[in-house]
Amino acid sequence: MLSLLGDWRRTHYCGELNGKNTGEDICVMGWVHRRRDHGGVIFIDLRDKTGLLQLVLNPEISPEAHSIAEAVRSEYVVAVKGKVEKRPEGTINENLPTGEIEIIVKEIKILNNAKTPPFQIEENTNVGEDVRLKYRYLDLRRPNLQKNIILRHNLTRTMREYLYGKGFLDIETPFLTKSTPEGARDYLVPSRVNPGKFYALPQSPQMFKQLLMISGYDRYFQIVRCFRDEDLRADRQPEFTQLDMEMSFIDRQDLMDLIEGLFVEIFQKVAGITVQRPFPVMTYAEAMEKYSHDAPDTRFELFTKTINDLVKDCEFKVFTDAIKEGGIVKAINAKGAGKFSRKEIDEITDYAVSLGAKGLAYIKINEDGLQSPIIKFLGEQLTHRILDTMDAKVGDIVFFGAGEKSTVNLFMSKVRLELGRRLGLIDKNKYNFTWVIDFPLLEWDKEEKRYAAVHHPFTAPVDEDIPLFDTDPLKIRAKAYDLVLNGSEIGGGSIRIHRSDIQEKMFNILGLTKEECDLKFGFFIEALRYGTPPHGGIAFGVDRIASILAGADSIRDVIAFPKTQKATCLMSDAPNKVDAKQLKELSIKLDIIEEK
Amino acid sequence: MLSLLGDWRRTHYCGELNGKNTGEDICVMGWVHRRRDHGGVIFIDLRDKTGLLQLVLNPEISPEAHSIAEAVRSEYVVAVKGKVEKRPEGTINENLPTGEIEIIVKEIKILNNAKTPPFQIEENTNVGEDVRLKYRYLDLRRPNLQKNIILRHNLTRTMREYLYGKGFLDIETPFLTKSTPEGARDYLVPSRVNPGKFYALPQSPQMFKQLLMISGYDRYFQIVRCFRDEDLRADRQPEFTQLDMEMSFIDRQDLMDLIEGLFVEIFQKVAGITVQRPFPVMTYAEAMEKYSHDAPDTRFELFTKTINDLVKDCEFKVFTDAIKEGGIVKAINAKGAGKFSRKEIDEITDYAVSLGAKGLAYIKINEDGLQSPIIKFLGEQLTHRILDTMDAKVGDIVFFGAGEKSTVNLFMSKVRLELGRRLGLIDKNKYNFTWVIDFPLLEWDKEEKRYAAVHHPFTAPVDEDIPLFDTDPLKIRAKAYDLVLNGSEIGGGSIRIHRSDIQEKMFNILGLTKEECDLKFGFFIEALRYGTPPHGGIAFGVDRIASILAGADSIRDVIAFPKTQKATCLMSDAPNKVDAKQLKELSIKLDIIEEK
Repeated sequence: MLSLLGDWRRTHYCGELNGKNTGEDICVMGWVHRRRDHGGVIFIDLRDKTGLLQLVLNPEISPEAHSIAEAVRSEYVVAVKGKVEKRPEGTINENLPTGEIEIIVKEIKILNNAKTPPFQIEENTNVGEDVRLKYRYLDLRRPNLQKNIILRHNLTRTMREYLYGKGFLDIETPFLTKSTPEGARDYLVPSRVNPGKFYALPQSPQMFKQLLMISGYDRYFQIVRCFRDEDLRADRQPEFTQLDMEMSFIDRQDLMDLIEGLFVEIFQKVAGITVQRPFPVMTYAEAMEKYSHDAPDTRFELFTKTINDLVKDCEFKVFTDAIKEGGIVKAINAKGAGKFSRKEIDEITDYAVSLGAKGLAYIKINEDGLQSPIIKFLGEQLTHRILDTMDAKVGDIVFFGAGEKSTVNLFMSKVRLELGRRLGLIDKNKYNFTWVIDFPLLEWDKEEKRYAAVHHPFTAPVDEDIPLFDTDPLKIRAKAYDLVLNGSEIGGGSIRIHRSDIQEKMFNILGLTKEECDLKFGFFIEALRYGTPPHGGIAFGVDRIASILAGADSIRDVIAFPKTQKATCLMSDAPNKVDAKQLKELSIKLDIIEEK
Repeated sequence: MLSLLGDWRRTHYCGELNGKNTGEDICVMGWVHRRRDHGGVIFIDLRDKTGLLQLVLNPEISPEAHSIAEAVRSEYVVAVKGKVEKRPEGTINENLPTGEIEIIVKEIKILNNAKTPPFQIEENTNVGEDVRLKYRYLDLRRPNLQKNIILRHNLTRTMREYLYGKGFLDIETPFLTKSTPEGARDYLVPSRVNPGKFYALPQSPQMFKQLLMISGYDRYFQIVRCFRDEDLRADRQPEFTQLDMEMSFIDRQDLMDLIEGLFVEIFQKVAGITVQRPFPVMTYAEAMEKYSHDAPDTRFELFTKTINDLVKDCEFKVFTDAIKEGGIVKAINAKGAGKFSRKEIDEITDYAVSLGAKGLAYIKINEDGLQSPIIKFLGEQLTHRILDTMDAKVGDIVFFGAGEKSTVNLFMSKVRLELGRRLGLIDKNKYNFTWVIDFPLLEWDKEEKRYAAVHHPFTAPVDEDIPLFDTDPLKIRAKAYDLVLNGSEIGGGSIRIHRSDIQEKMFNILGLTKEECDLKFGFFIEALRYGTPPHGGIAFGVDRIASILAGADSIRDVIAFPKTQKATCLMSDAPNKVDAKQLKELSIKLDIIEEK
């Protein structure tokens, strides 16, 4: 029933052919996308990764081919030999690159048959993602997923070629490694030959790339898989891909210049989009004040503003209590939101509440005066001082959030984005890059009651802030930088600590005991003592960047074989149970009550 | 004590400078390789990844720089500004690319100090590997290791650029996956969110790359880490890197042509070596007969020969018993081995015995007649028939091995290599590629008492051999091919099974029950039913190829951070113990008696 290639060789991909090839004898191979009979003639849309091509099987031209084609069904794999001809007048398909031609088939071979797939291989599908993930190999035939996977290939290729040209060395680092301090949970791998001991899968090659700088490799990069055993909220994967880089003898500006060049090239080559340099630079403080977030979406100009000073003595207890408790009051002027219905305002308020807000006060400026539940507490004079400060005009609504600082920033930043959406201010065709710098080095971890590194413990403090280690640690600025695109952080990095004494200071303030320090990082601190050059680096989320370039809703749409929110693979059914013998070999046993 | 870069920027790497730069003001940064005082003047050899450069600090030219330089020790990190000048007559160093110049230093900055390293950073070192692995970051400063790591970068870069040009898509496959059937043990990863279940780290992306062909991606490649939890004999690593490829709508010859082009390019670009194509092709049967091994070293022409027919009726029981028990008798003519001393012959015999031989009979052809412990059994006539068959002349020695087939092939192949070495027949500058084809599809596993796949269970049988599944499975030839270079297998692959019925036949003959089959490969067999194109691929060992190109003794010398034979990292001390809390989270516990 099935035949092999024999001496048949493909001369073209389907999508490559067009009017220029008219008259040529060609051989193409691919999948039967659609088959229809029309007055005894069989028409087949043949599909490969380059697109669709119309085959015509006419019983009068080639009876054998025609009769073989009668057996053909959707997704059969076939090879055909035939002649390229212009389509008859009126049958030209403008929407298809190959739409002006068709192949008059002389011979056809069925290379493989196919069961009827559980869903149609179509550009857009309304089939549930679970089914598509179970049959991922069919989902991956869909033109838009193929477009994404090919785009991702072009993305990593462009990254490599740019960095090859800049003298970076592609150096591989281990996967079976030791717990890193990135914060998130490690995936562990029991060692059979070393009973009771475990490897950790890397959350990033951080220490290895710094060791490569200590070893004098000067410029390193790697496109590398990393692993985080986190609870997978939102759009996360247990394994993700990172463009990881490190350079020696540089300062922040050197790295920023190099990276801006990289992204100009990526956007030009992969998406045909021209990006302007230099990218704007914003301090963390400014980002938090104006956008209430450290990854600001700068595509639209609604800004949040802290108004503690204005309202600290007012009659509105919600504001004054918040301030008394060390919190903040922030306002945002939703320009033109006057047209919002009562219902819409409630929706926005509910959204804020769902994010931890106690409520969302507002002042609406109508032609015929103000409308607000709170002006009776503020009084006329203060109300107008506030409206002036927020530059509020007729047709605007000013929203207010009050409470604990981080909570207010959280919901006000989300409310800002929601307002941008509802007011149609977000231009999907804009690509706004922003560097965010001068992050704090440390933050206070309430649960653990200790300082925690905002980036990671290898980030260098700003030199003049070093004395603050002993006086006011939370005021220390880090030599860290994030690259933000359209409100999502696509990369982050820093100039690193290259002095062992500062590195020890850092570990100490993070509350590591001498013992923990030696156990976890002893070898690294020792390495810093043997001649470490000033160095710094950055890492980018390849999945995220690919999904932005592809305009995909989820990073799952730019990963060939992604996992679910439960970190499972619906196709192969990984992870799965293993037999006791394997566990015995690894000197471990299960610590659960096996459900019967 | 330490200063930062400030506005200093490197203008050149050390090794880039030469006579052409004479008179230029430059800024270089690197490591103090050596420092010596000479009549009040300080000479420093500055090192970076490009090489060494001589710095001159003359107190009369720049007293400040000179006094700073007095504090400098080996491996300090410094930056200097100065002028390039020709060295005085008679002080030119021919062995150094920068040997005709030196830098007259005007300013110097100490960027970091350094403890005295545990060993000198020298081209060649006699320091034990354990110490070098513990301080790998210092070992990696040694010029020859840097050469290897840079060579490896050029190797993978060349592979990528060649495959980009051939329309291959670089597609990433998962690391957290399901047990694959490659034979070796899997590394397991417990899943926290799925208690009692485990991921397996891939031994190769075999099924994923075939699924990508089923999905229509047509040409796939990936340079990817793979994992095998084997007992690390010889030169193995628990994690290794593979160039993994797969193509659709091809036959063996298409793939061979593409691969030969790849290696011609690799050897030209990475090592400047011109390789001839096409590569010779040898059947498995021929390789086993003439080289007694399936990865023949074709650089020298000593051949083994089965002489069962000649000796089956002779008086020498060692031969006849072996044949009666279904074994073989093989001979090899060591041309010119006549010069071997008695002691040397004994050494070779002992070597064979250490590999399982009962002994190693021989006939030495001297001017004055034959010398041999066995001719008295063979008789004159047979002896001369044998010598004729082996084309043995005065000055040669013919060695004989007898016994069970696989044992004889093992020790005779090793004896052949040993003879090649001792007779000086192996040309280190020769690079002999050989394709080995027509492997058997199956072998008989004595322990498990069942058939096992010689390559892997996805390898396609030769079409006309398919009927043998029911009659004589061991006679089925596989559409498999290995690429051998100088006697080591650097890559292997096959045309795959693209029909679900054949794939099931294969799993059945391997003794998988319907249940096991469904559990392990159900999804894959199902995938084959939805329109699978004919396809095939190959995978190459990147570590091995890099070590051959670098002329390294061990793959550890081409891996930045390798592991020991015990699969440990002496630098970071991975694997290590983890705290009970982590194990609890993973629903596992240790199954060992903790040594106190």
